[in-house]
Amino acid sequence: MAEHLSQSELDYPFKLLEYFNGFRVSKVIFSACELGVFDLLLKSQEPLSARHVARELSSSVDGMERLLDALVGIEILEVEKTDGTGEEEEEEEEETSSALYSSSDVANLYLAKGSAKSLYDMIIYQSQTIYPLWNNMVDAVREGKNQNEKTFGLPPEEVFQAIYRSDEEMLKFMGLMNSSWVLDGHDIATAFNLSCFENIVDLGGCTGALAREMAKAYPSSSVTVFDLPQVVEAAQTHFCQENDAVVFQTGDFFSGEIPPADLYVLARIIHDWPEEKCLTLLKKIFDTCKPGGGVLLVEAMLFENRRGPVMAQIFSLNMLVQAEGRERPPSEYTHMLTKTGFHNVQVCRTGKSYDAILATR
Amino acid sequence: MAEHLSQSELDYPFKLLEYFNGFRVSKVIFSACELGVFDLLLKSQEPLSARHVARELSSSVDGMERLLDALVGIEILEVEKTDGTGEEEEEEEEETSSALYSSSDVANLYLAKGSAKSLYDMIIYQSQTIYPLWNNMVDAVREGKNQNEKTFGLPPEEVFQAIYRSDEEMLKFMGLMNSSWVLDGHDIATAFNLSCFENIVDLGGCTGALAREMAKAYPSSSVTVFDLPQVVEAAQTHFCQENDAVVFQTGDFFSGEIPPADLYVLARIIHDWPEEKCLTLLKKIFDTCKPGGGVLLVEAMLFENRRGPVMAQIFSLNMLVQAEGRERPPSEYTHMLTKTGFHNVQVCRTGKSYDAILATR
Repeated sequence: MAEHLSQSELDYPFKLLEYFNGFRVSKVIFSACELGVFDLLLKSQEPLSARHVARELSSSVDGMERLLDALVGIEILEVEKTDGTGEEEEEEEEETSSALYSSSDVANLYLAKGSAKSLYDMIIYQSQTIYPLWNNMVDAVREGKNQNEKTFGLPPEEVFQAIYRSDEEMLKFMGLMNSSWVLDGHDIATAFNLSCFENIVDLGGCTGALAREMAKAYPSSSVTVFDLPQVVEAAQTHFCQENDAVVFQTGDFFSGEIPPADLYVLARIIHDWPEEKCLTLLKKIFDTCKPGGGVLLVEAMLFENRRGPVMAQIFSLNMLVQAEGRERPPSEYTHMLTKTGFHNVQVCRTGKSYDAILATR
Repeated sequence: MAEHLSQSELDYPFKLLEYFNGFRVSKVIFSACELGVFDLLLKSQEPLSARHVARELSSSVDGMERLLDALVGIEILEVEKTDGTGEEEEEEEEETSSALYSSSDVANLYLAKGSAKSLYDMIIYQSQTIYPLWNNMVDAVREGKNQNEKTFGLPPEEVFQAIYRSDEEMLKFMGLMNSSWVLDGHDIATAFNLSCFENIVDLGGCTGALAREMAKAYPSSSVTVFDLPQVVEAAQTHFCQENDAVVFQTGDFFSGEIPPADLYVLARIIHDWPEEKCLTLLKKIFDTCKPGGGVLLVEAMLFENRRGPVMAQIFSLNMLVQAEGRERPPSEYTHMLTKTGFHNVQVCRTGKSYDAILATR
């Protein structure tokens, strides 16, 4: 979305047609991920034919060939045409494509399931949950509320009961959160020098991915992940690490007490809720926080001039269609923080998807 | 999709995240179209507040404001912040956004409903039919067949019975076809000099949009649209023009006879069907066509090297998920044309979405 929609669009709307086509490009990548294309190509020591990929992944040759070609078109895979006499294929009854496909560094790093920087979980969640939700965006805008009911038959009032409606769904959501911090965690942890905070508690810290980045950046601080019992249990079962640098503690930051700390982290928590609920939570943190302690908010921040970033504006619509909150510009976070007693509000834009705001008591 | 997925993606996958986000950008534009945002802004003589737009379009202020902001982010609308004391709003109880939105030339030309170059019908079809179909792309690739049954509960065998399942659906599809030729029709009509063909018949010519471009480019030729009775009736009721330069004729080019002509046009017909059915149709045309006559195929043509164009590769996946055909490179069209007796095959790539192939008997 870097290009400007210029005057030349009036002659022929190339950029507009690319926007119209965006959903299909997303689904090309998502479908390949779901089918296991990138894992197979990473594992393979050599380029593979569409027929070979199709056989391994129990799919049609014709469908797989079209999918692989589209992935070549968006430069996520590479292709070389052969003379069609390769020995790789045993049966050559049908006309074959005589093309061999291989992966790219970008696909190996971000799209294969096992990679350290894998965005696989993010993709699964976007493809299976967010994509259908956005099919009801017209109603979300009309009604001004989330579409969990129309999309999934779930009650619209209890956002996290919807998101955590089954162990499987909860794990998918946790995977989404986890991959976000695999990408942005380091930038967030180092957006400010937080080494002065001895005890850091990540409220709603989910799998601990951001907390681990904090522990890595500030080895002399202790870092605790605080989340609901079922989330902590799943985190320890499915996202545990050997010699984990973070500890987990269970509780509910809305209905229960929060543990004492020098710094509270709220990463993508505030954006889920309407202002009133955010103020209640921030007040609770203020009251528990030691003097000199602080709170770190992590969100995709809007520009004050309303002109972007596009990603944050789109996330804000996502909060509309899925939750009860919104994305906000720095001034609104500052307003909420000062209203609950915090001061010395500092804003850091990372230039990535998520930004950070630090305030002290 | 112009940028290269370069090495810098390995540091942070900006382009990849943009691809993931593609479906949400599509739905931002589609939803605004469906809600009537662009029509209202075109009609209005002055910039409007989110509150005003929401009221006129019976939507929530909050949802509309987020949608308008995202449209600003992708540079389809413009925004100016005001001091918040404008007189436009009568009731100022709630906090207001103090922003006024206006349309862009691109939106007025292509996204408003009434504009001569409106892509409104294309958008409605993509949003309401193609978007849900693509949610089943994984199954389409696995099974190698269309997903009309899973998506809409329609039988997969009868593609056009599915597409034309109600008058409303048929009109939507016809609108889609019509907007395509509003965009690409002139380039297609002038891709070759067709003035030597006195009688031109557009087989499956739908609303007549491409045929009218032919009639405009070759005023001394007679141009006939040949399509199913219900399509012709709808074309004359909903897409008629005063002093229409084209005539309509009803029939079924698969089961019945086709009218005599010097040039037959098959625009986005061949791509719907498997090769065998295409050969039968081309043979019928060859047999009816006078010596010296010809056939013009209009399709989004793949490159022989399988590397693009992305749009054609994506259309080919669309044929998988919705129909029985595929997009093809020029060599495959040439193969089919020569196999049925045509010769002198000439290929013209327009650089737009659709290309043209001319062959003579």
